[in-house]
Amino acid sequence: MRQPTVYLLSCGDELLFGHTVDTNSAWLAEQCTLLGWRIAGHRTVGDVTPDIIMAFLDATARADAVILTGGLGPTMDDRTRQALAHALGAELREDREALTEIQAMFRRFNRPMGENNRVQALIPDGAERIVNPNGTAPGIKATLQGAKVFCMPGVPREMREMFRLSVAPVLREAEGRAHEVMRRLHLCGRGEADIGAAIRHLMRERSNPEVGTAVAESIVTVRLYAKGETPAEAEKTAAEAEAGIRAVLEDDVFGTDGETLAACVIGLLKERGARLVTAESCTGGMLSSLLVDVPGASAVFVEGTVAYANEAKIGLLGVPRETLEKHGAVSRGTAAAMAEGALRRLRANGPAYSLATTGIAGPDGGTPEKPVGTVWIACSVLDAEGKGMTRSVRHNWAADRQGIRMRGANAALDLLRRTLLGRPSNYPVEGSAWERP
Amino acid sequence: MRQPTVYLLSCGDELLFGHTVDTNSAWLAEQCTLLGWRIAGHRTVGDVTPDIIMAFLDATARADAVILTGGLGPTMDDRTRQALAHALGAELREDREALTEIQAMFRRFNRPMGENNRVQALIPDGAERIVNPNGTAPGIKATLQGAKVFCMPGVPREMREMFRLSVAPVLREAEGRAHEVMRRLHLCGRGEADIGAAIRHLMRERSNPEVGTAVAESIVTVRLYAKGETPAEAEKTAAEAEAGIRAVLEDDVFGTDGETLAACVIGLLKERGARLVTAESCTGGMLSSLLVDVPGASAVFVEGTVAYANEAKIGLLGVPRETLEKHGAVSRGTAAAMAEGALRRLRANGPAYSLATTGIAGPDGGTPEKPVGTVWIACSVLDAEGKGMTRSVRHNWAADRQGIRMRGANAALDLLRRTLLGRPSNYPVEGSAWERP
Repeated sequence: MRQPTVYLLSCGDELLFGHTVDTNSAWLAEQCTLLGWRIAGHRTVGDVTPDIIMAFLDATARADAVILTGGLGPTMDDRTRQALAHALGAELREDREALTEIQAMFRRFNRPMGENNRVQALIPDGAERIVNPNGTAPGIKATLQGAKVFCMPGVPREMREMFRLSVAPVLREAEGRAHEVMRRLHLCGRGEADIGAAIRHLMRERSNPEVGTAVAESIVTVRLYAKGETPAEAEKTAAEAEAGIRAVLEDDVFGTDGETLAACVIGLLKERGARLVTAESCTGGMLSSLLVDVPGASAVFVEGTVAYANEAKIGLLGVPRETLEKHGAVSRGTAAAMAEGALRRLRANGPAYSLATTGIAGPDGGTPEKPVGTVWIACSVLDAEGKGMTRSVRHNWAADRQGIRMRGANAALDLLRRTLLGRPSNYPVEGSAWERP
Repeated sequence: MRQPTVYLLSCGDELLFGHTVDTNSAWLAEQCTLLGWRIAGHRTVGDVTPDIIMAFLDATARADAVILTGGLGPTMDDRTRQALAHALGAELREDREALTEIQAMFRRFNRPMGENNRVQALIPDGAERIVNPNGTAPGIKATLQGAKVFCMPGVPREMREMFRLSVAPVLREAEGRAHEVMRRLHLCGRGEADIGAAIRHLMRERSNPEVGTAVAESIVTVRLYAKGETPAEAEKTAAEAEAGIRAVLEDDVFGTDGETLAACVIGLLKERGARLVTAESCTGGMLSSLLVDVPGASAVFVEGTVAYANEAKIGLLGVPRETLEKHGAVSRGTAAAMAEGALRRLRANGPAYSLATTGIAGPDGGTPEKPVGTVWIACSVLDAEGKGMTRSVRHNWAADRQGIRMRGANAALDLLRRTLLGRPSNYPVEGSAWERP
């Protein structure tokens, strides 16, 4: 039985010209792979009706299913429904249920519905609408050249829910689907080459499972992709490979699949009944934002300060002016004083932790001694008796402003995780004790 | 003279399976379009040597140039250099200069160089290396089937600099390049359909310039794409269209091309000699992070607080406990008290502004009265005499946790921008005066 194939089309001048990054193809590729379909290809087309018609005809000739996202909006440059009607040789008609849903959506959000939005209720004759619970543009389901065609809006949140509700169930019915298991293991605080060398014996080409690595903003991901003749066999192959990787990398692995470093840290703090505060300079709120992005963070994360100016470091966090003058804003002393100052103001009954970042994110401000990319991270812990311990690490990254800030935020979370687990850092750590009076 | 074409290939299982989003194709598409080349297509291939060889042969048959990113790393699953050597029918040899550069890069960052990294100095016979000033993997330049081939690492920062230094100059030499001008105008605080209706007369298919819209996290972008027989003609067409759009949308347009809303707001505050503080709950540092992402933000942005827990709203910002108990954490009263509290602690000589956010980002915590997606934004201004004025707006978005938080941060910046410009909001604003004792 041949494995069913799906072709992914992304529609929009903003994608073709590169104004917008296509995140939908990646998401859909992952979902379809997990459903046991093979990805025949990804392609991007602009907002030109004949190009979209050609893409529909070409993709339906190549694959068993075609999923197109984009071009279903209310403006003149949204041409997917016209193109699909032409490809099908069908007329567009107003779908009454679709119109009712669109009107209800506008009522729900207390917005007036423009005449423009009415075109979103048009569906080619013989096609079916796909309900969109989260937006005004319904999707379209049709059959073209024997292939199933699914059109959905490009707005990720709308598309994803529609995929789950209406597309995945259809894909799940296909015969010949592979039994595949994907797993990703995430690490921070070790280089990609170092990790690659450690698991080199598992990274053979065309092996089962296939094992690879990728890196983004200091977080290395080891992914494995296992196949089997049955779901159980695929799962067994994946589990064995995962165990082999974990045996080598141990608890440098902080999470699996969708788990973030922030979620891991919040989980560890919850287990210990501990609370967390942050004091950020160069990361400027990115660190607290990663924490707040975890649902339920409020059980652990109390408050954060963004002390960007020196006066804020003094006023908000009580960093001694002498420390700033003697060692500079980007120094071990300032990072430690920020972390300790953030804890001093907190009245905690149990153990409490703090994270501080201060660095030079560029593009200007670097010196030979402290080049752009220099970031000091401090992690401080205060017990219920008022005894504190601060650990500080200096990093130096070659990246742009946003990249340095992202790595700073991740490195701070990594330092806290290693502190919580009593695990050594791969970078030199300086420790110092302090007390809350 | 036919317009030269370029085909973009992205290489990596992490892209094919959808674990990583391909941002390089968008960036390269934009750069190549701006250089007057036509984008023949985007395609993604996995880490399988024969697939990469086939992609090289197929793309070089279709276009005048091929740009591949990815697969040049130090690990076993990086197969671009082997695949290119096979496609060229050439042997790989160690490039001495490349090896010297790699060794220097490791010394610069004080890291030990593993044996793994040595493979990055391999280049097919007859090909040339492309210098990578920001990383350990050099690129490769070759000619295959008469087409120019450029291979670069997938790390965006490395790839972009290599493109600027070594690829763009070659593309610029081609004949037949189109004279094209792209421009993007960004707006916040108005819906996409509303904006589309206002400029409907400019959005004809296959017109010159082509005009389209896109939306991401409440920011609507109107893009125009003008062609001409000469650069001056293309520029004239673009300028006329831009003037036409601005005549309709007026100063709802906050920026052009790469300009962000945060940069716009920081520019306006600088002009007025005013300073800014933030007080965030649901956005959790995202707002301050957007501000800090602007180089030179320190001239304006003093400090931010992330008062996520109620005790932090009371302790850090002096929100009255009665306000929290009577109206709840997500209310006009709490948002205003947060904005005012952030200003009270600031000793400013000139005018000072503050922004506060409090909302329900979900997935839990919604009620029929305050569903998930409810966010209160407050903007307060305090003059040198201690007289303050606070404007508050309630929003309600249908999005996921991250989307609601992003829109909250953007809406806060939009409210401040409209306040600074004395421009009305498209949402009902409640105002109230206050005084600093």
